[in-house]
Amino acid sequence: MASEKCFDNGSCAPSPIPNGLIRIYSMRFCPFAQRTRLVLHAKGIKHETVNINLKDKPDWYLQKNPMGLVPTLETSSGQLICESLITCEYLDEVYGDKKLLPADPFEKAQQKMWLEDYSKIIPLFYKIPTAGKNGEDVSALKEELKNKLAKLNKVLVNKSTKFFAGDDITMIDYMMWPWFERLEMYGVKNCLDGTPELKKWTGRMLEDKAVKATMHPIETHKAFGKSFFEGKPDYDYGL
Amino acid sequence: MASEKCFDNGSCAPSPIPNGLIRIYSMRFCPFAQRTRLVLHAKGIKHETVNINLKDKPDWYLQKNPMGLVPTLETSSGQLICESLITCEYLDEVYGDKKLLPADPFEKAQQKMWLEDYSKIIPLFYKIPTAGKNGEDVSALKEELKNKLAKLNKVLVNKSTKFFAGDDITMIDYMMWPWFERLEMYGVKNCLDGTPELKKWTGRMLEDKAVKATMHPIETHKAFGKSFFEGKPDYDYGL
Repeated sequence: MASEKCFDNGSCAPSPIPNGLIRIYSMRFCPFAQRTRLVLHAKGIKHETVNINLKDKPDWYLQKNPMGLVPTLETSSGQLICESLITCEYLDEVYGDKKLLPADPFEKAQQKMWLEDYSKIIPLFYKIPTAGKNGEDVSALKEELKNKLAKLNKVLVNKSTKFFAGDDITMIDYMMWPWFERLEMYGVKNCLDGTPELKKWTGRMLEDKAVKATMHPIETHKAFGKSFFEGKPDYDYGL
Repeated sequence: MASEKCFDNGSCAPSPIPNGLIRIYSMRFCPFAQRTRLVLHAKGIKHETVNINLKDKPDWYLQKNPMGLVPTLETSSGQLICESLITCEYLDEVYGDKKLLPADPFEKAQQKMWLEDYSKIIPLFYKIPTAGKNGEDVSALKEELKNKLAKLNKVLVNKSTKFFAGDDITMIDYMMWPWFERLEMYGVKNCLDGTPELKKWTGRMLEDKAVKATMHPIETHKAFGKSFFEGKPDYDYGL
């Protein structure tokens, strides 16, 4: 488990998971997998990481997860948990006293509603650079993104809190973060110019330990992003 | 609140919600709203229902829920909860001792993973009748549906239980049910012919009190479905 290099088709399956440990199947640059990595770090959960080559998936991984997506969690008793939000809620329920989701059912529902809205922003982060690469006019897409970011900004303005659900960082902040870390890679960093509170939020997020533990320098994201948008993702970039 | 007739644009807002009661904004034939109605009935939660004209939405409703979708829950203190799965989990957490979701985090995660898979089946229930109406060949879509239903059938065969998470009905059964109630309306009832365990499950579901309390006779569904697929949904059909 010492190497971070990804497992590809033809690779041998990794060794069994030691008792009581949890494993994350991940990809170093995947924002969805980063959600789970953020929760693992924020809660101080001892874990091991197996990175997967998503363009050339190992058979042994497809047997565990026929869709072959990351993140997936596996417990030492062989339980498999897929889908980023489901993995994060699972980890929050099972581990640690410090919960990232609120105990109050309405506040919890509210975080899930925000996430549902946020899930409609995510495709723009891919559409804009893809359209740009194809020489298309991206101004309408950027305008759409700015409008959606303005709504997030308004939440922070109305609440006057440091983070989205109060002055402490909670699940919603971590679930939104990975795409903000990559704004420059998507070529949309200037979309934050009209949303000063959201910009301040990104500054606060950058000071968080779990964010620091899981993030890559923007130059690394840009190098990976270049390979990704060219259709030849370099999963082991920098190793 | 006596009438079930839908509120449309220009209607006055309904009266305030009595203390301690919960209101569901619904549409009588909406399968997503039926999910929430199933949970309300299964848990015996006292509630009132306000049906919304989804083609001609009241302004007062759009102020509460800018997307104007149903189901939405509103508490007497004005809290609003949207999205069918979020409303159901909220109700399960807040009300009653008998929980519909398992307490065990892995079992709960498993129900959510099944639901994630199931959400990929739902579009087929609309694509098939729409394509059929346009005179297109629907055999490939029906084959796709059959394959997906076969996977659900296999879950029941492997588990040898009456319902999807054991011999008692739980959240996952209710969340999948509304589309099975409408199979004949979608013109895909024969897609169950190759999946005998799933067919037996539909028989068991029909005996459930909450299912009985929320369902419509198939002739009613077909009449509404006809109006819906013709683009002129008759939300008050039969009233």
